[in-house]
Amino acid sequence: MIIATERSRRPADFVRGPAIVQSLKICPFCPGQEAKTPPELLAYRNGSQPNQPGWSLRVVPNKFPALRVEGEIVRAGDGMYDSMSGVGAHEVFIESPDHTLTLAELPEKAVEDLFWAFRHRFLDLKKDPRLKYLLLFKNHGDAAGSSIEHSHSQLIALPVVPTRVHEEMEGAQKYFAFKERCVYCDILRQETSDGSRVVLETDHFLAIAPYAPRFPFETWLVPRLHASHFETIETGAMPNLAWIMRMLLRKMDRVLEKPAYNFIVHTAPVQETATVHYHWHIEVIPKLTRVAGFEWGTGFYINPTPPEEAARFLREAGLV
Amino acid sequence: MIIATERSRRPADFVRGPAIVQSLKICPFCPGQEAKTPPELLAYRNGSQPNQPGWSLRVVPNKFPALRVEGEIVRAGDGMYDSMSGVGAHEVFIESPDHTLTLAELPEKAVEDLFWAFRHRFLDLKKDPRLKYLLLFKNHGDAAGSSIEHSHSQLIALPVVPTRVHEEMEGAQKYFAFKERCVYCDILRQETSDGSRVVLETDHFLAIAPYAPRFPFETWLVPRLHASHFETIETGAMPNLAWIMRMLLRKMDRVLEKPAYNFIVHTAPVQETATVHYHWHIEVIPKLTRVAGFEWGTGFYINPTPPEEAARFLREAGLV
Repeated sequence: MIIATERSRRPADFVRGPAIVQSLKICPFCPGQEAKTPPELLAYRNGSQPNQPGWSLRVVPNKFPALRVEGEIVRAGDGMYDSMSGVGAHEVFIESPDHTLTLAELPEKAVEDLFWAFRHRFLDLKKDPRLKYLLLFKNHGDAAGSSIEHSHSQLIALPVVPTRVHEEMEGAQKYFAFKERCVYCDILRQETSDGSRVVLETDHFLAIAPYAPRFPFETWLVPRLHASHFETIETGAMPNLAWIMRMLLRKMDRVLEKPAYNFIVHTAPVQETATVHYHWHIEVIPKLTRVAGFEWGTGFYINPTPPEEAARFLREAGLV
Repeated sequence: MIIATERSRRPADFVRGPAIVQSLKICPFCPGQEAKTPPELLAYRNGSQPNQPGWSLRVVPNKFPALRVEGEIVRAGDGMYDSMSGVGAHEVFIESPDHTLTLAELPEKAVEDLFWAFRHRFLDLKKDPRLKYLLLFKNHGDAAGSSIEHSHSQLIALPVVPTRVHEEMEGAQKYFAFKERCVYCDILRQETSDGSRVVLETDHFLAIAPYAPRFPFETWLVPRLHASHFETIETGAMPNLAWIMRMLLRKMDRVLEKPAYNFIVHTAPVQETATVHYHWHIEVIPKLTRVAGFEWGTGFYINPTPPEEAARFLREAGLV
């Protein structure tokens, strides 16, 4: 658990409700407002000066970070408890200068550029040995936790490998120890031959409804080629990844009427070497149900939609 | 993950949005509507006939259960995957005949009766050896996942011990192996002597903001007397539990302006014998923030409110 005191809120802040930024007239992510964000870390631009208009994609530090790159990691005891200072980084990827377009509505080139920018920032942050895990994710829409309308993704660099990642890596390791095969490679084989849970296929990627989805219409993008680390993606696979992500989001927009969603890049810890047992992939979760007492109490999820049905709806969705 | 096909939903169901029951004119939990629920399992009533008005509290099977008590547990292979049939039970505790009152607004006696009813159903379901875990929880308000307005709690009986419970038990076991003391007993000692995170105290219970809360204003009710199983609670402690739960909810209503919330009873698996290392307790989580990509991706939670501040706000909240 991370206490982010720079975001410290008194009770009244909660009562007032979220979506504060959205109600402002001026969007800090729009062209011409570059001074409203910290100086950019990366931008794709048409010859113009840094922190000026003329960009198609812009990466900036989060103005209200959950964690920041500063100082040493300090581990301390506090009575019986342990604490650790929050070294890290929190970056925002502004996906387009256009305030109104969603990632699904942007051209394929913009989606591909986003994934290139992810890789670029990964390779840069990887050089800092204090940063043990790089988490790439997107919150789209209010229900998915996004307080800013202008389409953006996020990268959080952490000084520890998160519990969830540990568990997933461990699960994959156990499967490998038993079968001497990567569980995700086995999933790719089984899903390709079965077909009922396949949403989309390209040369390099498979989009599937997983066998045991926690959420209705949860969909995974899995690279066909085994690789544990996202940042090792081949140049030739990138346009494929952009196409399949965009197509999936457009199909979700169609079937679920533009739902809020999260996507999360699941990848091996950045300081660890390539492994045979883990396989990077992206999980896309439309926000259709609420997580309530049962889910908090068990870690189990009740899903009203079988994955075969979800895959069929998405597969058959025609696009306009 | 549980696929509940009896609740199967097509895309349009999600688009339409929740709160279907609330929009009906007739509430199935109100007196006079007893025939709209399955026959009651337990009721506290004033001499009237079962499934008739005259009750103060009523326990009924959920009409749309996530799991039901029927048949054998069947474990099966499905290609490379494993599946298990969903034997279990799902019960609803209707906390009052009054449609409009929340648990916080009910008299202390009604809250105590609710905990007695929990215990009663626990002792009954415990007799079924197929049921490995009994989960008691409450979803209050739309944002916390409740689709029915009339105040109620829930019990779900599971044929397996959930992951979350396993992990919590394991953590407590490791602490005990290292220190030869119960971690929750240690927390009680440290919090009582420190005081800064204490919200309320009674002879039998302590209400505290935990040292590392995942959510703002998360509060735990911990019994002072070590016990691993909720259902072993002593008769004398029950009025104390009712008082502290009600007082906490009233304080949350005051400070956070009647928030949605979940509470979850954390207790040892019902078929296991009493242990020295686990300590039952109740976690109350007001629903103030949204779980987004970062939380899903890491299992870490970003909390903008330090626990000492949350405890102080609740401690100092005067009640009308």
